[in-house]
Amino acid sequence: MAIAKGYAATDASQPLTPFTFERRDPNEDDVVISVKYCGVCHSDIHQARNEWGNGIFPMVPGHEVAGIVTAVGSRVTKFKTGDRVGVGCFVNSCTKCAERNVDLEQYMPGIVQTYNDVEADGTTPTYGGYSDSIVVKEGYVLSFPDNLPLDAAAPLLCAGITLYSPLHHWKAGPGKNVAIVGMGGLGHMGVKIGHAMGAEVTVLSQSLSKKEDGLKLGASHYYATSDPKTFTTLAGTFDLIICTVGTVIDWNAYLNLLKIDGTMVLVGVPEHPVPVHAFSVIGGRKSLAGSGIGSIKETQEMLDFCGKHNIVAEIETIDIKDINQAYERVLKSDVRYRFVIDMASL
Amino acid sequence: MAIAKGYAATDASQPLTPFTFERRDPNEDDVVISVKYCGVCHSDIHQARNEWGNGIFPMVPGHEVAGIVTAVGSRVTKFKTGDRVGVGCFVNSCTKCAERNVDLEQYMPGIVQTYNDVEADGTTPTYGGYSDSIVVKEGYVLSFPDNLPLDAAAPLLCAGITLYSPLHHWKAGPGKNVAIVGMGGLGHMGVKIGHAMGAEVTVLSQSLSKKEDGLKLGASHYYATSDPKTFTTLAGTFDLIICTVGTVIDWNAYLNLLKIDGTMVLVGVPEHPVPVHAFSVIGGRKSLAGSGIGSIKETQEMLDFCGKHNIVAEIETIDIKDINQAYERVLKSDVRYRFVIDMASL
Repeated sequence: MAIAKGYAATDASQPLTPFTFERRDPNEDDVVISVKYCGVCHSDIHQARNEWGNGIFPMVPGHEVAGIVTAVGSRVTKFKTGDRVGVGCFVNSCTKCAERNVDLEQYMPGIVQTYNDVEADGTTPTYGGYSDSIVVKEGYVLSFPDNLPLDAAAPLLCAGITLYSPLHHWKAGPGKNVAIVGMGGLGHMGVKIGHAMGAEVTVLSQSLSKKEDGLKLGASHYYATSDPKTFTTLAGTFDLIICTVGTVIDWNAYLNLLKIDGTMVLVGVPEHPVPVHAFSVIGGRKSLAGSGIGSIKETQEMLDFCGKHNIVAEIETIDIKDINQAYERVLKSDVRYRFVIDMASL
Repeated sequence: MAIAKGYAATDASQPLTPFTFERRDPNEDDVVISVKYCGVCHSDIHQARNEWGNGIFPMVPGHEVAGIVTAVGSRVTKFKTGDRVGVGCFVNSCTKCAERNVDLEQYMPGIVQTYNDVEADGTTPTYGGYSDSIVVKEGYVLSFPDNLPLDAAAPLLCAGITLYSPLHHWKAGPGKNVAIVGMGGLGHMGVKIGHAMGAEVTVLSQSLSKKEDGLKLGASHYYATSDPKTFTTLAGTFDLIICTVGTVIDWNAYLNLLKIDGTMVLVGVPEHPVPVHAFSVIGGRKSLAGSGIGSIKETQEMLDFCGKHNIVAEIETIDIKDINQAYERVLKSDVRYRFVIDMASL
């Protein structure tokens, strides 16, 4: 066992504090990673505060992990010491199935989350990337393209894939009108990726305060949803709407912005259910769909796509001692557009 | 102008009573039809009672119209006197567009409903099939296959196409597990059509009272939704769920019965919006979609499919004087499975 340092929530009511713990010894198929940067995802806050009700404490959050390989098991073939690698939202999958579903493993019941979960052995807790090292099975380690800096690329592993997967699955591309609802950590990645795919991207944000950024990152249009005229002007406009908002908004009003056969995809999770009227989908054969992260295969494909198009997140780098303040700022949407912890500060 | 007889609601609070009115003179592209049978759709009741708030009175309901051609305009090429024909939910479309969208015209704003609407001229009200005759543009008249009796085939024009369209669009067929929610006028058509398409059909009905019928009509399985075990037994089972129910039920519980990438399609319209949790669609990349009737092209395709597979509705034929009692029985789900008015009783 190796001793690891990190930051943990000791229980749901406590701020994150320094925490020392054991990382498991690497197996033959494991990669040992020195963590250099870790993105701060809104879901880290939900889980550290046990807002989804399944918290395992002490909890070391972090699933946008970027680092350097320091050792590999004897049967590892894809990675070697010194490689620039990442770990996303899960570190094992299909542990309850006979066969690994490589295309959609993120939706399978046997998924093992990078933190706040238990390894396939049923006993070892998983600890995330707010730490100096992590040990992960080779098959769940991602490669960063050489041209992407590790700090700004880290958020691709959750925010990036969360947007890439539905944009790709629902065929965003030339000739398609795509709306991104919400201009935060997720939304700004949707603007960059959707634009790079060739779609015409519109941002629907509560206000116009981030309009300049949105247009600079690739949006062709930017509308304030606080202005009721937005919903008449844009009625019947979009092939695809990706909703990144984690608060309750009236989905019916957004469904009305879709063309016939259009799809609105939820990637943000409001705390409460949202009332949906049947006519909102029956008129125009529309769909209200959902999407969650992506498979390892798709995440690597996303990283390669981002490398090719030179896409990374817009970040604010922080020291780990400032993580609790960063959480408060995330809750106030006061970040442009993703916090990334510099692990050298640990 | 020809004088027509029918039954109308004179206002939203009145029962239907005998009504005499004028049918327009046929234009060059019109077909004049002697109505023999007309199905009774739940939406007739909603509209006659102005429950959707857009009622035009006096209103002659009826959009499952089956009859015989008695005259054709000089430019009509597809029909001749004596032909067995039908009229469904609309009699014109795309009246507000430059071009007719023949594939999805039912979703276009310029649609003209068979009753409770105004013709493209902007002044003539449309009156439906609870009457002895109707005059309809050639392009909106359907042909019944020779082997289908007019009385039992009439409900295909709304109930049939309402189920055929989503089953076809979402690719019900061999190897697909399809659930039909609700075993009424719509649901029983879904069982027959889904089975004929080659899908494995399961009925999810409130009770098992119609189980024998469901299995006879083509379902392989039949479950009561009043039994909570149904929702654990069938979790993750279906590729496609078609929900015909017009009352508020917990859609989240049904979404949980879908496989990864499954779709639940609403064709019934509950009076109130239904709360949907984002996790219900995000877990498994599921879709909650809607579908409304079908285009004229698709409706003819459906009729030809039903002819080939010898599919008609299960009906109870009534005299038109009994229409108000029939409405009360529809509201109590006391019909197996569709009322059809014999217009000889007018």
